[in-house]
Amino acid sequence: MAQKTWTLLDGQHNLFGGDGVVIDASDVGGSQQGYVIKAWTEHAGLSQGVQRVSIDNGTLTVDVLPTRGMSLWRAAYAGANGEEFLGWKSPVRGPVHPAYVPLSEASGLGWLDGFDELLVRCGLESNGAPDFDASGQLKYSLHGRIGNRPAHFVQLSVDGDTGEITLIGEVEECRFHFLKLRLRSTIRTRLNSNILEITDEVINLSASRAEIQLLYHVNFGIPLLDAGAQVVAAPQRVVPRNDHAAEGIASWHHFGAETAGFAEQVYFLELFADGQHKTRTLLKNAHGTRGASLVYDTRQLPYFSLWKNTTAVEDGCVTGLEPGTNFPNPRSFEGTHGRTVPLKGRASARFELTLAYHPDEESVTEAEQAIRRLQTSPPQVANRPDANWCA
Amino acid sequence: MAQKTWTLLDGQHNLFGGDGVVIDASDVGGSQQGYVIKAWTEHAGLSQGVQRVSIDNGTLTVDVLPTRGMSLWRAAYAGANGEEFLGWKSPVRGPVHPAYVPLSEASGLGWLDGFDELLVRCGLESNGAPDFDASGQLKYSLHGRIGNRPAHFVQLSVDGDTGEITLIGEVEECRFHFLKLRLRSTIRTRLNSNILEITDEVINLSASRAEIQLLYHVNFGIPLLDAGAQVVAAPQRVVPRNDHAAEGIASWHHFGAETAGFAEQVYFLELFADGQHKTRTLLKNAHGTRGASLVYDTRQLPYFSLWKNTTAVEDGCVTGLEPGTNFPNPRSFEGTHGRTVPLKGRASARFELTLAYHPDEESVTEAEQAIRRLQTSPPQVANRPDANWCA
Amino acid sequence: MAQKTWTLLDGQHNLFGGDGVVIDASDVGGSQQGYVIKAWTEHAGLSQGVQRVSIDNGTLTVDVLPTRGMSLWRAAYAGANGEEFLGWKSPVRGPVHPAYVPLSEASGLGWLDGFDELLVRCGLESNGAPDFDASGQLKYSLHGRIGNRPAHFVQLSVDGDTGEITLIGEVEECRFHFLKLRLRSTIRTRLNSNILEITDEVINLSASRAEIQLLYHVNFGIPLLDAGAQVVAAPQRVVPRNDHAAEGIASWHHFGAETAGFAEQVYFLELFADGQHKTRTLLKNAHGTRGASLVYDTRQLPYFSLWKNTTAVEDGCVTGLEPGTNFPNPRSFEGTHGRTVPLKGRASARFELTLAYHPDEESVTEAEQAIRRLQTSPPQVANRPDANWCA
Repeated sequence: MAQKTWTLLDGQHNLFGGDGVVIDASDVGGSQQGYVIKAWTEHAGLSQGVQRVSIDNGTLTVDVLPTRGMSLWRAAYAGANGEEFLGWKSPVRGPVHPAYVPLSEASGLGWLDGFDELLVRCGLESNGAPDFDASGQLKYSLHGRIGNRPAHFVQLSVDGDTGEITLIGEVEECRFHFLKLRLRSTIRTRLNSNILEITDEVINLSASRAEIQLLYHVNFGIPLLDAGAQVVAAPQRVVPRNDHAAEGIASWHHFGAETAGFAEQVYFLELFADGQHKTRTLLKNAHGTRGASLVYDTRQLPYFSLWKNTTAVEDGCVTGLEPGTNFPNPRSFEGTHGRTVPLKGRASARFELTLAYHPDEESVTEAEQAIRRLQTSPPQVANRPDANWCA
Repeated sequence: MAQKTWTLLDGQHNLFGGDGVVIDASDVGGSQQGYVIKAWTEHAGLSQGVQRVSIDNGTLTVDVLPTRGMSLWRAAYAGANGEEFLGWKSPVRGPVHPAYVPLSEASGLGWLDGFDELLVRCGLESNGAPDFDASGQLKYSLHGRIGNRPAHFVQLSVDGDTGEITLIGEVEECRFHFLKLRLRSTIRTRLNSNILEITDEVINLSASRAEIQLLYHVNFGIPLLDAGAQVVAAPQRVVPRNDHAAEGIASWHHFGAETAGFAEQVYFLELFADGQHKTRTLLKNAHGTRGASLVYDTRQLPYFSLWKNTTAVEDGCVTGLEPGTNFPNPRSFEGTHGRTVPLKGRASARFELTLAYHPDEESVTEAEQAIRRLQTSPPQVANRPDANWCA
Repeated sequence: MAQKTWTLLDGQHNLFGGDGVVIDASDVGGSQQGYVIKAWTEHAGLSQGVQRVSIDNGTLTVDVLPTRGMSLWRAAYAGANGEEFLGWKSPVRGPVHPAYVPLSEASGLGWLDGFDELLVRCGLESNGAPDFDASGQLKYSLHGRIGNRPAHFVQLSVDGDTGEITLIGEVEECRFHFLKLRLRSTIRTRLNSNILEITDEVINLSASRAEIQLLYHVNFGIPLLDAGAQVVAAPQRVVPRNDHAAEGIASWHHFGAETAGFAEQVYFLELFADGQHKTRTLLKNAHGTRGASLVYDTRQLPYFSLWKNTTAVEDGCVTGLEPGTNFPNPRSFEGTHGRTVPLKGRASARFELTLAYHPDEESVTEAEQAIRRLQTSPPQVANRPDANWCA
């Protein structure tokens, strides 16, 4: 059996350092060939010190950031006509080391200084808009800490016979006297696959009860998000987050061209799922020739937020598909409405999310039809924010 | 004379880098053998960039953290039946680089994100609970800055004839227009000794007057802190910090078993000293077979705080023995009550603290008897907080 | 043509790492000899991780800090009697890595923790005193972010025939949803020149309008700033910033000896310029045998601040010559008075500043005479702060 495992990072053990490490079939053996995994540390600008793992499965390349909570930085698909970019172009020049992300800034918006990923987790104690106490002091900053916590342990496994590539990373979000949480993230792909499977285990390390939140902020920009792009989902219900979003409710799942000064619009959704509680959401381009979709379990991630931010490219034209344990409202509001996950002492919760790239019309259509089949009755589309869903 | 000195860190000079440095008798010569000193830089997780010196004197190993203000991270005693751990298991996975410790967080509690040491200094401008102004803005954060300031200079000396090992580190806590302080710390041990001697000089670098505070937060957990462990001290007076501590006053020096959700209790003490102004405080396990004690000068460190935090092991079961220039109340309160150390321009203050490990019943008993001899009259034990001592 | 270019820093490409890089005429060729450029990364204390470029043109050596926004750290002139230091001795032991500079501290004064440069830019979104909203929450911290943002790209060019040495650095100050600005800084000198030419381009990367501020905080201490040193300028108008400065208005351009506890005094000036809109300001020592001057365009930098801080040497005896787009008042105040630079989407602004060292009486006198010629009418010297200039 040609399976090999490398501990890339563990205490003083660090395969990211120096010139980094490059692993391919010549290191693994087995019948499967054509993949390459690299790990290295960045040196320049805001990226100084960022540890990065690039997994090229032969077709899909994805860059993972241990230093940023095992976020997926960007991906690329090796198409017939060259590389197809998956992710977005943030005005932030990342990947940004957490030392440059002022999470404790009084505004609660410091998280924005590091935001440029394809997939970043928001949590684990909280996510959503900044939350202040009565005196105006910040209680919970935007989208929480986990995206800016570094993994202390990273392990790579490659099976040279099946072509399965697995990257495990452990990240902790602990404060003495407060919550003690661990994320154990597994990212799995296979030779020449266009699919990434994420399995996250969130562990309450404490002997006492905890409440957590987790939201996957999955972000796409141009070229996928072209003028006329659409989100295809199977909503039971769609609610605009605020009055500004309500103005655009009629076209909530359509995207216009990038527009300088565009003010973001957010929609909150509950989605239908199949008998196994799985739902799927797709972003497809205007011509339906390219797409990306998410598959996940609505028992694990019952709420879905769609973030439309088709501002000018220079300012970060992007949409976020965001399955979560909650809506990204301030933590207190979500707590009041029961949208947190309770964890007994030493207990854990599991979250699975599959990200697929659809490189052609056939694949897009197939994904779209699967979603249409979930829509067993028409959605309720609200014209106004809902007091239980919208802070 | 076989004495050698290495500058481990000084500007661009850095013996921590790359694979680090290892120094033993083969580098020093002389008649004494069996010690080894290592210095290296950590790479993983919150420890990325932390410079660490491990001194093994043949019997006692102590890890010192230049990057965290020359804190003592952990120690271990090489007993007949294996290694005996000295320190505690914090839920924080350290040692934590200061870049990950948000001291300026509005709550004033950011210090907790880096707290996992056997001995960490709290100061130098202030220590104690967060202090806010009338508008609620943070003035002094929990336990001050010095524990999260990096040494700019580290020097090791070994005497191969006497077996004395000395580590000097210089750390500064300066802000333009505000206090300018330097800690020059000397940590000394000897071949096969179970004693660590710390001599700290705090220098006011300014031409103008300063006021400083210093508290040694010395922390022990399991196995020393087992159910039935006791603190042995020679108090003139014992005062519970608050009503919750007052509830436990009858057993202020006894420790129960670890208990999930245990709320910390703190006691403030003044201690008797001998003719040379030395006092001693001991923590011993339930059977009196292991202990650790502190010896220091009550003129330098007149106030003693005992922090009992026997929560679940996962949450950081620990007790703190904390000699200081003050009680860890907010800085303003302590200032009002005169518990700061004034320093004229360019003046300095000296603090000496000896930490001894007691690996057997005989040594524990000897330390205990020395303390009992100091207790020349019974302690005054208050049932309630004291308005002059407790904020 | 003997011209060579090195990319010192660009993504994973890093010539600062390991033992750094040294470049001299043997690498370049050409007729010009005697210069040497070094680049390396610092390891100790607050400087851990700071990338530094030292340019020695044969006569003048200047250290540039990519990690601190391309600041000029210090310079030195190779005089007949040894090295003459240009800069000042801050109580802060730098150069300080931005990870140790708490810009988001509620006081707004975190910038002071990193302040020790000969020349640091204040901006780009704002500079000046901290600015708070009505509830007391920090809106703009002291002197902005650019001085603590790291360059992501650094390029060195040397022309071996002309002896011209050019260092280009790019630094960004971007926050998603907020301003997106890039500084492209060019520092130019020539073999054996005592002149440094800085050309800064500030680019609005956004598609939407921005407003920026830029102030060059150019700082000199002892030996240039001796007792009796003077500033020579060509003011149209001089205004004391506050009542304390007003007390010293009669001697606004004279410096006394260093004095422990001296409280800083600041004067705001508008200066005369020549037909090409160039003005010059000189600091000369008491005997007029050494000096340093700034030349710049008053259309680009219409306001000038003189900061007198002749406190004890240990506390940072220093004066700041500060040409800017504005006075260093809180950002809101300056905005109200129109002292910001508007930039359309994708537009840029250019700033040029020349720093000359005058190593002898002749050169000082020449600079002084050039300034005297600009003074075509006597200055208006105000006895009190001006409500339009002084917050």
